[in-house]
Amino acid sequence: MQIDSLIHARWIIPVEPTFVTYEYHSLAIDDGKIIDILPTEIAEQKYQAKNQDSLLQHILIPGLINSHTHAAMTLMRGIADDLPLMQWLQEHIWPLEQKWMSAAYVKDGTDLAIAEMLRGGTTCFNDMYFFPEITAQQAIQYGIRASIGLILVDFPSVWAEDPDTYIAKGLALHEQLRHQALITTPFAPHAPYTVSDLPLQRIHALANELELPVHMHVHETRHEVEQQLQQTGQRPLQRLQKLGLLNPSFIAVHMTQLKDPEIKQFAEAGAHIVHCPESNLKLASGFCPVAKCLAAGINVALGTDGAASNNDLDMFGEMRMAALLGKGIAEDASAVPAMTALTMATLNGAKALGIDDITGSLKVGKAADVVAVQMDYLESQPIFDPISHLVYAVNRHQVSDVWVAGKQLLKQRHLTTFNVDALKTKLTLWQQRLSNQTVG
Amino acid sequence: MQIDSLIHARWIIPVEPTFVTYEYHSLAIDDGKIIDILPTEIAEQKYQAKNQDSLLQHILIPGLINSHTHAAMTLMRGIADDLPLMQWLQEHIWPLEQKWMSAAYVKDGTDLAIAEMLRGGTTCFNDMYFFPEITAQQAIQYGIRASIGLILVDFPSVWAEDPDTYIAKGLALHEQLRHQALITTPFAPHAPYTVSDLPLQRIHALANELELPVHMHVHETRHEVEQQLQQTGQRPLQRLQKLGLLNPSFIAVHMTQLKDPEIKQFAEAGAHIVHCPESNLKLASGFCPVAKCLAAGINVALGTDGAASNNDLDMFGEMRMAALLGKGIAEDASAVPAMTALTMATLNGAKALGIDDITGSLKVGKAADVVAVQMDYLESQPIFDPISHLVYAVNRHQVSDVWVAGKQLLKQRHLTTFNVDALKTKLTLWQQRLSNQTVG
Repeated sequence: MQIDSLIHARWIIPVEPTFVTYEYHSLAIDDGKIIDILPTEIAEQKYQAKNQDSLLQHILIPGLINSHTHAAMTLMRGIADDLPLMQWLQEHIWPLEQKWMSAAYVKDGTDLAIAEMLRGGTTCFNDMYFFPEITAQQAIQYGIRASIGLILVDFPSVWAEDPDTYIAKGLALHEQLRHQALITTPFAPHAPYTVSDLPLQRIHALANELELPVHMHVHETRHEVEQQLQQTGQRPLQRLQKLGLLNPSFIAVHMTQLKDPEIKQFAEAGAHIVHCPESNLKLASGFCPVAKCLAAGINVALGTDGAASNNDLDMFGEMRMAALLGKGIAEDASAVPAMTALTMATLNGAKALGIDDITGSLKVGKAADVVAVQMDYLESQPIFDPISHLVYAVNRHQVSDVWVAGKQLLKQRHLTTFNVDALKTKLTLWQQRLSNQTVG
Repeated sequence: MQIDSLIHARWIIPVEPTFVTYEYHSLAIDDGKIIDILPTEIAEQKYQAKNQDSLLQHILIPGLINSHTHAAMTLMRGIADDLPLMQWLQEHIWPLEQKWMSAAYVKDGTDLAIAEMLRGGTTCFNDMYFFPEITAQQAIQYGIRASIGLILVDFPSVWAEDPDTYIAKGLALHEQLRHQALITTPFAPHAPYTVSDLPLQRIHALANELELPVHMHVHETRHEVEQQLQQTGQRPLQRLQKLGLLNPSFIAVHMTQLKDPEIKQFAEAGAHIVHCPESNLKLASGFCPVAKCLAAGINVALGTDGAASNNDLDMFGEMRMAALLGKGIAEDASAVPAMTALTMATLNGAKALGIDDITGSLKVGKAADVVAVQMDYLESQPIFDPISHLVYAVNRHQVSDVWVAGKQLLKQRHLTTFNVDALKTKLTLWQQRLSNQTVG
């Protein structure tokens, strides 16, 4: 049978079914989809492929899903660290955004983010930022899968002047993008403390009607929860519950402040959590009780957050941190085991974004969103359990090849759809502009 | 003036003085020592060097000091994860060690550890394991600086049958190694719960007489502290204090269980802490209150612990984890800032090991223990603050070149003193042997 591609691998970890590792198997890809996973010697007889890759020192895994990003913020990587959250936002991040936010800023920052994510094995990201049409356009240009948040905050920005305009521009963008195969468009109201009831009610109604997820920062810090409790008499989760938002289309990011009854209620609602452990640590926001949430049956995905509070978009780092920190916080070395962390970074992300029928595991019928990790580095020897190594020992630099919907976007560490030199030149310019801003 | 080497760099971060970043400066090296740090254009006029390196996309930093290792345990990397500490030790690590521990095991495991550490910018390690004479021999062979613990436990091992023999073999090894320029030999009694008073008293007396440090696991887990309290009526730190061990030559590893008065007492004693954040998380041992310890004036260094509980020997990862986790535990985003984490991984390690007159910073008169980090990767763009990037964004794969005492041990990522293929062949054999052991 004639097909597009065969990838022969030393190991394939499909994530679905869980705990399975195929050895000396091949992935057969046609028309962007996985059509077969079978022993290599059989694959070579059964299929004639236009492209063949023999990756005999490699593990194939589903593409990683970065379930919470502000992609363009890579331009502010390391510009202000080691500061309390409010000082960081009010004296650094917000003034810089105020001065520089533009379509050009978002374009170049998103380009860097996509390049970095592809080089680190991320094939899909869930973004929330201004100028989402630019983020979508760049994702389409480079061929990465993306969930482009239709952002909304109460206050005006250079992108929109009021909640009605945010919603109108969001709806227009949704309409424009709805036939793009790699793009989905959740609503993305920023956070309970920045979006009032009226726009949240509209978003709730529209999300139901259009069957779109809702992506929101929730309970990021203790301060925010306490302040809202003082101002409104209720904790933000209570308010969101009353507004009807806690349902299987809701994606709550951070969730560091959770009481046990809230975990139970959230689980019953079937809503999703995106855990961002490195950002939560760097901003000292608090600890998401991941083991408890998983035990309650909540689908927990993983995200890096923006590069300004991380300072990278490294999902291997995030998997490792989730597994390590999850044990420390649970006071249980068996909490958040390697297979769970890998599932959080793949299938759970796809579930949260409502695209697990398309991606998130290496399963016949799903898109060929595939990452090859090269394992013959000294730092990965010896190998007793490839799943353990992916989480506890692999460095993202070991990602050798990446495919999205069957198209190869990273080939032996080279980005196939980028002009890297041109991008670096633009980044140098942004470095100069933003540096001048921060002097004094 | 004729000298051995000039290294021209885009940035030099000497660590001492703190917060300094030289731009377009050069490091002048002669007879293994740093003899000058000066602007490159002046350096080129002042010195004629036999070797010149132009590292114009790079940061030079002092070699990283991994202040707590069990180097040979790299052979058990990922062999048993996600298990509670006692189950991990009793059902996996100890039976494997029981079966396989030998001079050959320690030799090959140490080789892998040294290769991995050099490739990740570590120029000195502080080890505690059986067959320390083999660890020392391999360190000398490859040219890395090492602090080789003269191990002691109450129970017999394949290396020694009783405390007296451990001490006698340790003293003989100290005598044998005392003229080796790159090697020091602290005493290394394993932990309060594995070493009784009598051998600790002998070690205390001998350490004073020979002016050697004492390297010991202390207060690693709550369980261990509670058990000792029940059995002896005192917390381990109290006991060590009474035995006279808490002094400026004492290196206490882990220290996750600390009351405020213990921190004060430890600071007053002038003793050192080695913080191993990844190992503490992976084994769910507890959290060292690093910000509090630093505020009390304690010298806190960093270590990876053995690869079986980490699962790598990556000091860049450990710096980043120390900075991130330190903020989370202190609930303060300004805690353990980047410059502090870098200092913990360099100068503080040298202080703990009693070798800060020789290494730990790029200072005229110290040994040329130097690491070059390549910064023109997309993942490190843009660059506003090189110190921030070293801690929050650099990946150890960006280490390009490493020198110890002026000798280049890593050159454009190639190990100059290793036969890597031969090492890999040996590792494959160990993988097969140890895998067979773990079946069933």
